[in-house]
Amino acid sequence: MKTVGVDLGTRSYDIVIGAGALAELGRLSRKRTLTVMDSTVKALHGAKILASAGGSPEEVFSFPAGERSKTPETAVEICRCAARLKFDRSCRFAAAGGGVTGDLTGFAAAIFMRGIEFIQIPTTLLAAVDSGVGGKTGADIPEGKNLVGAFHQPAGVFIDTRLLTTLPASELGNGLAEIVKTAVILDPELFELLENSADRLVSRPDFEELYPEIIRRCCELKGMIVAEDEKESGRRAVLNYGHTFGHAVELLSDYTLPHGQAVAIGMAAASHLAVLRGLWKQSDADRQNRLLSRLGLPVKVPPRCRTCDLVNAMRADKKNVGGAIRVVLCSAVGSSRLPEAAGDGELAAAWEMIR
Amino acid sequence: MKTVGVDLGTRSYDIVIGAGALAELGRLSRKRTLTVMDSTVKALHGAKILASAGGSPEEVFSFPAGERSKTPETAVEICRCAARLKFDRSCRFAAAGGGVTGDLTGFAAAIFMRGIEFIQIPTTLLAAVDSGVGGKTGADIPEGKNLVGAFHQPAGVFIDTRLLTTLPASELGNGLAEIVKTAVILDPELFELLENSADRLVSRPDFEELYPEIIRRCCELKGMIVAEDEKESGRRAVLNYGHTFGHAVELLSDYTLPHGQAVAIGMAAASHLAVLRGLWKQSDADRQNRLLSRLGLPVKVPPRCRTCDLVNAMRADKKNVGGAIRVVLCSAVGSSRLPEAAGDGELAAAWEMIR
Repeated sequence: MKTVGVDLGTRSYDIVIGAGALAELGRLSRKRTLTVMDSTVKALHGAKILASAGGSPEEVFSFPAGERSKTPETAVEICRCAARLKFDRSCRFAAAGGGVTGDLTGFAAAIFMRGIEFIQIPTTLLAAVDSGVGGKTGADIPEGKNLVGAFHQPAGVFIDTRLLTTLPASELGNGLAEIVKTAVILDPELFELLENSADRLVSRPDFEELYPEIIRRCCELKGMIVAEDEKESGRRAVLNYGHTFGHAVELLSDYTLPHGQAVAIGMAAASHLAVLRGLWKQSDADRQNRLLSRLGLPVKVPPRCRTCDLVNAMRADKKNVGGAIRVVLCSAVGSSRLPEAAGDGELAAAWEMIR
Repeated sequence: MKTVGVDLGTRSYDIVIGAGALAELGRLSRKRTLTVMDSTVKALHGAKILASAGGSPEEVFSFPAGERSKTPETAVEICRCAARLKFDRSCRFAAAGGGVTGDLTGFAAAIFMRGIEFIQIPTTLLAAVDSGVGGKTGADIPEGKNLVGAFHQPAGVFIDTRLLTTLPASELGNGLAEIVKTAVILDPELFELLENSADRLVSRPDFEELYPEIIRRCCELKGMIVAEDEKESGRRAVLNYGHTFGHAVELLSDYTLPHGQAVAIGMAAASHLAVLRGLWKQSDADRQNRLLSRLGLPVKVPPRCRTCDLVNAMRADKKNVGGAIRVVLCSAVGSSRLPEAAGDGELAAAWEMIR
């Protein structure tokens, strides 16, 4: 079992990673817990998770799987369920699932009685390396994704890699895209490890040793960034590498494109912009895009996405300030720069280069 | 004009108080602002407030006056309105109104894009001395009042006492109850001032000098308490004096009893429990209840409230921990103690003494 400590100054918490993290959770002292799961996770792993999180069968809130459930209404339903169960401020929520479950449950925990504890039990690779760590919670409104939410840190994260064995390949891809992103912006050694073990990540995935080690490294890196800049006023923004471009592709696909694929395409576009600006060597950018391809991730604009629509969609990103489109670029594998404004012309050129 | 600074360590803000605070707001530099008002405030003061807060007529969100609007759905509607207006994280909300507007708008500001700035423009005495200061925000769900919400401090509070001149007597009473509460738990001098000026508070209210001074003192005291204990893990709980008893009366009245009247009755009950326990001199408790009466506030249990129902209703208070009913008691005018557990028998006795 591996443990990563995240120290946020006034608070700290542990991320426990490995085949058997659920058993570790079961051993820890318990608070009264409302476990939140979507229909899929409940069917696959419900009993096991409930036994470890320490709740009774009534202390479960489940909802239909899928991004369409990620609304403020569902978060309020979680709070109402807790209120009906007479939960008080000494109780906690457990989010057992992927990003939707984690974001929703964390948001509900942030607002129930003005904030109670919650723990994360990620069941997807994406949640394990990204959304499960860092304390960003939220829900979607018709006007846009994650437009309501809160910064609310978990009290603990328990990543049992055995839960990942049931993931379909596309779900694995979502996580791998964020793992490559983390390596590209922060860690050349992790990048090399990924290059050297691409087949043990995709064709014959190793959930006992390799994945726990890679997840540990990603959590450590993300934890460091979050500790430095919890509310994203500076450095944390580098975690958005590939995302401003990627969100545009997601939006134009009407969110039918998996998040990881959109981020991979976004990183490819960002790499070309960095090369165009003379920041990044072409050979390094190629190295990034080759790794993405080897991991089964797309690096080309999907058909029927017009360049002008992509640039317009980037304008809607909520991280823009005062109207300018801002993107994270890299100067080497492992070295990222703070977000910088980009003009329509060069953005269009970058998109054109990945057609 | 009087200014009270609230210093929360990492953040600080000013409370500007006086006849003319709105003009002061108008002079300060402006962010893009969505002003939130209920239908009553909009009709009475809308144009004046909007001119000071610095918004265009489209940048207003209004909703039907009354506690029934205080739902998470209304808070989300505020966020959706801001999203449609293309607000980003550099914009702010302004809450112009009483407790419902302040709580809702603060909650919306806490969750819009994971938290943006908001300012308070209290238009009721209660909001000026209590809900407008301190950063507690929230909304009601069918299972209970304020069961969802957040701690989110305003970036500034502008209390223009000229707005208070349109208040009906019952609204003034709501504020006076909290003012007496503040004096009883924290400030014997303020208590004396209230005793010496009861008629200039009620029959011929002085909004140019006396009220600004009393509001200033209340804001200062509340600001100090909040600075010491923002999230109510300790000392802040004394602000709940009279409230655990009062909430029970409110609940049994189905929230038809005004909050201030409920708190006055709650303080009377608490004073009798403190006397019963030998903590407080009968003469001091009488002094509190006499002042409440002079200010037109009730100090007796409303007819048709049974003692057993009142005790049971106290059990539902969200501030109870682990099942025990906890109440704040005083040991002298100006001296309060941290919440302490109380048994059913003595609670019933205290209620019986104010029949």
